[in-house]
Amino acid sequence: MEKSVRFATIATRRGLRLHLHGSQGYTDIGDVTGNETLSTLTGLLASGQDALQALVGISTDEGHPVDAADFGPAVPNPARVLCIGVNYREHAVEGGRDVPTWPEVFVRGGPSVTGPFADLVKPALTDRYDYEGELGVVIGTGGRYIRAANALDAVFGFVVLNDASARDWQRASTQWTGGKNFDQSMPVGPEIVTPDEVDVTNLQLTTTLNGAVMQSANTSQMIVSVVQCVEFLSSFTTLRPGDVIATGTPGGVGFARTPPVWLTPGDVVEVEVEGVGTIRNTVVAEVAAPGDWAWKPVVRQSNSI
Amino acid sequence: MEKSVRFATIATRRGLRLHLHGSQGYTDIGDVTGNETLSTLTGLLASGQDALQALVGISTDEGHPVDAADFGPAVPNPARVLCIGVNYREHAVEGGRDVPTWPEVFVRGGPSVTGPFADLVKPALTDRYDYEGELGVVIGTGGRYIRAANALDAVFGFVVLNDASARDWQRASTQWTGGKNFDQSMPVGPEIVTPDEVDVTNLQLTTTLNGAVMQSANTSQMIVSVVQCVEFLSSFTTLRPGDVIATGTPGGVGFARTPPVWLTPGDVVEVEVEGVGTIRNTVVAEVAAPGDWAWKPVVRQSNSI
Repeated sequence: MEKSVRFATIATRRGLRLHLHGSQGYTDIGDVTGNETLSTLTGLLASGQDALQALVGISTDEGHPVDAADFGPAVPNPARVLCIGVNYREHAVEGGRDVPTWPEVFVRGGPSVTGPFADLVKPALTDRYDYEGELGVVIGTGGRYIRAANALDAVFGFVVLNDASARDWQRASTQWTGGKNFDQSMPVGPEIVTPDEVDVTNLQLTTTLNGAVMQSANTSQMIVSVVQCVEFLSSFTTLRPGDVIATGTPGGVGFARTPPVWLTPGDVVEVEVEGVGTIRNTVVAEVAAPGDWAWKPVVRQSNSI
Repeated sequence: MEKSVRFATIATRRGLRLHLHGSQGYTDIGDVTGNETLSTLTGLLASGQDALQALVGISTDEGHPVDAADFGPAVPNPARVLCIGVNYREHAVEGGRDVPTWPEVFVRGGPSVTGPFADLVKPALTDRYDYEGELGVVIGTGGRYIRAANALDAVFGFVVLNDASARDWQRASTQWTGGKNFDQSMPVGPEIVTPDEVDVTNLQLTTTLNGAVMQSANTSQMIVSVVQCVEFLSSFTTLRPGDVIATGTPGGVGFARTPPVWLTPGDVVEVEVEGVGTIRNTVVAEVAAPGDWAWKPVVRQSNSI
């Protein structure tokens, strides 16, 4: 695309619908184009380059304001989030891990995603809920065997995300899946920023908790860069339109602090990635969990999770 | 449902379509019901119990024969396969692992699934491709906080699968995602058998390689039973219709043998689960991989992967 555009998914009376960010606010893409296929991110990504090009003709001097509460996940219900673990040196060291010589990858499913300003539900089954501010990558055309040099061509855009983690669950087994897949534990947004608008090799990333800076790093410090992440993952899997890559969190997470810092109801977590945006979520207690549930991990080492 | 039914997904000139297994072969469900929504497993699962009940009225004395080559994955393009690792004691021991005290879970994505009789492509990027015969569970209604006592109500049926694994990729990092997510590395099928038809707590599981028995166990030996797997996973994630659970493989895999046995083109792998069915795949070489690809793990310990 020749002109920068930003995409948000907004809750409307007709459900979640894809919107274009303009100077006056947000424009419903399905309505303004008369093409309902373009009313969702999935539909837009399936429509190919011509559809994207058509969006450039939409006036960005229009649009209407949207309340924060009406923002849906910038990628609603992704088929999968491919997450790169331990991708900043400081985060490896603070976790007592070796700096990886090979990328760590775990997968989150669609149910684990939530909106950029939604309440962040602390699961009743964890006492060790933690934040992880990250840059996210939304796959556009995708593919297999994508070389790093061409990787940005396969990318639709970038988002901010919080890879919130139940540390007791994450460390109860060697595989991290449980701790990383609690329902609605990953806010994604606020909108998708196209690759022409930012240089992802040099973006400041800041996480604050109740206003205090907890993580402050630059994407230049990533061990495996964004384009290398795309290349690496495409070694084994065909990246599909709408897949998301979470590129890993820098140092400063709660479990590594003395004393540890765990998210509790009322906390406000903000993650900002320079040029991409800011997500902000208030932690709330879960009310749905049954009191006598059989599965709750026993914490083994209080200072390492 | 009061009558046992089996569902297969068959390749037709109109694409992959859901079929019912009858005494004369397979019947196209969309055609026979006049309801195109029921022409895919996804559509059927979204249609609720009434749609399922309507299927009981379809005559099972009809249908037509189907070539093995026309069987698609019994669950085509699942949103996710939640895989329980190390769920048989012998497999823990042979892999030099402790018997888990907490379930190990990793996730496969949709691109990693293939048909029950399809060619099994040995990825060019691995020299250590291995079989893992398993019982699979297809989620029906699903949900969150599903108690073991009610778990079978949330299940649509059972399948046979081969969780084929690139051991060099699996062991290059602590997380197993890469080695478990090569495109089309998990045959699923041959069809979905409903829970009323089998007792999943007592099914013989047999894997053969070129006719020789490599794995022979009973699902009664699972460390975490099928209903416990459903309960456990629903602790953190809402199980959705069409999600698949891979319940783990017993002892006898290739990496643990002396000398190790790796899959090579021409090999035929068969996995049978008593009462559910048999899948059979011929290993073929991959032709698409570029010769100069940057990512290939260095094997660290030849006897442990």
